[in-house]
Amino acid sequence: MRCDTSKTNRSSVEIEILKATYDALLKHGYADLSVTRIGDELDKSKSVIYHHYDTKMDLLSALLDFAVDTFLSRIETHPNRGPTKKLNHFLERLLTSDPAEEFQLQAVLVCFRSQAVTDQKIRAQFTRIDQRLAATIQDIIARGIQKGVFCDVEVSQVSEHLLAVINGVISNRHTTDREGVATTAHASVVSYVESELKQSC
Amino acid sequence: MRCDTSKTNRSSVEIEILKATYDALLKHGYADLSVTRIGDELDKSKSVIYHHYDTKMDLLSALLDFAVDTFLSRIETHPNRGPTKKLNHFLERLLTSDPAEEFQLQAVLVCFRSQAVTDQKIRAQFTRIDQRLAATIQDIIARGIQKGVFCDVEVSQVSEHLLAVINGVISNRHTTDREGVATTAHASVVSYVESELKQSC
Repeated sequence: MRCDTSKTNRSSVEIEILKATYDALLKHGYADLSVTRIGDELDKSKSVIYHHYDTKMDLLSALLDFAVDTFLSRIETHPNRGPTKKLNHFLERLLTSDPAEEFQLQAVLVCFRSQAVTDQKIRAQFTRIDQRLAATIQDIIARGIQKGVFCDVEVSQVSEHLLAVINGVISNRHTTDREGVATTAHASVVSYVESELKQSC
Repeated sequence: MRCDTSKTNRSSVEIEILKATYDALLKHGYADLSVTRIGDELDKSKSVIYHHYDTKMDLLSALLDFAVDTFLSRIETHPNRGPTKKLNHFLERLLTSDPAEEFQLQAVLVCFRSQAVTDQKIRAQFTRIDQRLAATIQDIIARGIQKGVFCDVEVSQVSEHLLAVINGVISNRHTTDREGVATTAHASVVSYVESELKQSC
């Protein structure tokens, strides 16, 4: 995981601990994560963890904040691109999850996602992620309509449709062994965008 | 949770324990589930749990099998309906998650889903669910094309698209506070089916 420390106040030791937690999470899963297992991924004594985080929950909470911030900072779209290129780039980034670093970041978020069913703080973070993704898609489509590049569609309907596909594909990729599905779904989304935003007007 | 005991060899005590596990899971989440908390949901002593299941993992595994079997038995489509009604009914069932019982069953499955990132056995169960859902959609579309009711589309592409939307909506419903999104996404799917399978030919 590449960590952008410039945007935060996290020290290098904290980043090292978060990186170890990230690796342990992807190895053992959320429910089987222990401080000992996180310590196994560290080059330092595990006692350093307790110097920086009072409990395992504090550490996991910091990791989720960190993963969410990193994920959201990467979905920024290029300001100078036109709506079509911007939307294609955005969808490609989320649906193909290339490079491997992006794939792992998504996997970490999927590891946390189930906890959002019962944990209000984690639920608030996933609400934040999905609101932000939906707003980004809405913004691109609205600008496309304004510029006459896209058809005058029901913006929220198309945005929620695309967001659902994105979340469905990410879930499939990390929680099943159904290979090739992401590629098929990506092709279907390209075709959906083409017919919904370009051909239907 | 309504339990169809006729299809299984589970005893009434086992069903009672599974029901208690189900309730405790929806109250505390997967990672914070303990045998004590499951016992709190039982009218019997928690020692009965260990008479039937060696470990907490055995019990959770039995619950997942049970939830998957129940979920899959409910998605059976009506054999005498035409492809359009069959597809609409199938999508409505999964996208609106009504009644409350269906909603809770989906929530239990979402509680398990993150564990599939690292646990091969759980991953195999989610692969099984998604394969079955995809096959059901494919079958309905293929029959619709055969009968001349649907356009001659790329069946796997449309099926994977619909499955991704379904999983995205279920994930949104149980892991975020974004209200009204399922209704918007459902409307978009109805419109997608209409334009993709009816109007494009």
